[in-house]
Amino acid sequence: MRALVLDGGLRYRADRKEARLRPGEARGQVLVAGLCNTDLELARGYMGFTGVPGHEFVGRVVEGPAKLVGKRVVGEINAGCGRCAGCRAGDSRHCPKRTVLGILGRDGAFADTLTLPVVNLKRVPDALADESAVFVEPTAAAFEILDQMPEDAGTQAVVLGDGKLGLLVAQVLAQAGYAVTAIGKHPDKLRVLRGSGARVRLASDKPPANVDVVAECTGTASGLQTALAVVRPRGTVFLKSTVAGQATLDLAPAVINEVRIQGSRCGRFEPAIEALAAERVNVSRMVSAVLPLEKGVEAFHRAVAPGVLKVLLRVAS
Amino acid sequence: MRALVLDGGLRYRADRKEARLRPGEARGQVLVAGLCNTDLELARGYMGFTGVPGHEFVGRVVEGPAKLVGKRVVGEINAGCGRCAGCRAGDSRHCPKRTVLGILGRDGAFADTLTLPVVNLKRVPDALADESAVFVEPTAAAFEILDQMPEDAGTQAVVLGDGKLGLLVAQVLAQAGYAVTAIGKHPDKLRVLRGSGARVRLASDKPPANVDVVAECTGTASGLQTALAVVRPRGTVFLKSTVAGQATLDLAPAVINEVRIQGSRCGRFEPAIEALAAERVNVSRMVSAVLPLEKGVEAFHRAVAPGVLKVLLRVAS
Repeated sequence: MRALVLDGGLRYRADRKEARLRPGEARGQVLVAGLCNTDLELARGYMGFTGVPGHEFVGRVVEGPAKLVGKRVVGEINAGCGRCAGCRAGDSRHCPKRTVLGILGRDGAFADTLTLPVVNLKRVPDALADESAVFVEPTAAAFEILDQMPEDAGTQAVVLGDGKLGLLVAQVLAQAGYAVTAIGKHPDKLRVLRGSGARVRLASDKPPANVDVVAECTGTASGLQTALAVVRPRGTVFLKSTVAGQATLDLAPAVINEVRIQGSRCGRFEPAIEALAAERVNVSRMVSAVLPLEKGVEAFHRAVAPGVLKVLLRVAS
Repeated sequence: MRALVLDGGLRYRADRKEARLRPGEARGQVLVAGLCNTDLELARGYMGFTGVPGHEFVGRVVEGPAKLVGKRVVGEINAGCGRCAGCRAGDSRHCPKRTVLGILGRDGAFADTLTLPVVNLKRVPDALADESAVFVEPTAAAFEILDQMPEDAGTQAVVLGDGKLGLLVAQVLAQAGYAVTAIGKHPDKLRVLRGSGARVRLASDKPPANVDVVAECTGTASGLQTALAVVRPRGTVFLKSTVAGQATLDLAPAVINEVRIQGSRCGRFEPAIEALAAERVNVSRMVSAVLPLEKGVEAFHRAVAPGVLKVLLRVAS
């Protein structure tokens, strides 16, 4: 099959072998796949991943349970062992033996087909176009913040970073009723939030202070330090980006102000599918380019260009 | 009065002016005061503090409400404005206008007398000796962890660091029912935990993994990194030390494992007074030396010597 393969460098190959289908798994024909910053980091060596990257996708089941074959699906990316306590409770996101689609031990979505456990697949409503459905995975990651929110967290939120994830987090918090201020460096990217209810502010403006909740989505070393300056005492900071590499940090403000710093990664798909279908989260303005799979290497270059938000690969239709 | 004064360097002075008593405040004759690592950091320039350091003390009220005069007290160190929401709810620990005894804008306990708001003072039971009562403030800081503990935190705890605070935290968690392993570099210090219920382990041993709760009390840059390697996915790390200076950290594990990093500082005094009075927390083995106030500068030197735990100043009796 056709695939982008990471092995030292990233290459387009027309002769990649399809993965063998293991018990309990289904095979999906990828329709559209999305490039995430994690993919760009993988290409720079993060996690030491070799194989087919890509974990944001919408596909059509071509092999698996009869009732699913032919259906359009999205897929949770963590494939668990099925036996540990987390997996048995229906959550494989922290299974110690998990593989992760396109990130850890499992070929991903930048290919004609992929395999995932059947339990990971979620049906996509007909009304949700491929170009929106492909945002389910990162939108679920944004919704994870709501699942982790302390009960007494308060109602004001600041989102740091106007990249893809920041723009999703701002929309998800706004539609949940938070008074959101999104702070970024790019007026053109912040424009995506028009009509979302979130206010926008440039990073060069005087930063707000004493805020209940801050979501750090800049993916930069200075992001957490800024978050600690913005959050109120006993407030909550969500860390959303796995910055590859180390950062020099002064955590004394977190101790003095008893801040909760909450690591936050993948989320449940259901609320994301609902919110995208109801257009409570709008992603159409976030698509900067759609390229065919063959142009996948170019897509990786495009994704790092200034002003670019989401780059999609149209694999099949 | 006699006092240790920090102003560039630390000096013993016999002619320090007593603080003026402000409305709502009482004056205490200091009986015993304890040296904390924060004091050692202040002496190195942390917080830019000038004045009389010292925030761990037991004293006798000499000026204030009639019913308190002559009584033995300990004192919460954060003196709030009395008007903000936190202060009105009886908690001045995060008042934005607070002064902090011997740390921020208020002379401290390494002197004949000190002043604090009357509401900050807590009576000390007769059964609690001065040399134990002086541990109420740091023991309260250890109890703060229990106030902040997530409901679903689990029951296994690791305490990193066998300094004064680590030994208190290990005892407080053990008496609260946690299965505690205290990890340190000093067998002689870890010996303090005999009979506490906490197990001890040397830092050179293979570290445990997949632990529910980790309390970082080493005060070193590598402590948080170790904590993130030891804690389970979705576990909790308490950060107890305000390391002066910056540290290079890789927070990716916190994001990937969705760890909660909880800054933790001062605590309520009541549970600490109770636990010390009932000897559920034993501090007698933690006293390395008791010096008179005149030898305060020497006490600071003694406090940083290898193997030394708590150094106390006997100010009056």
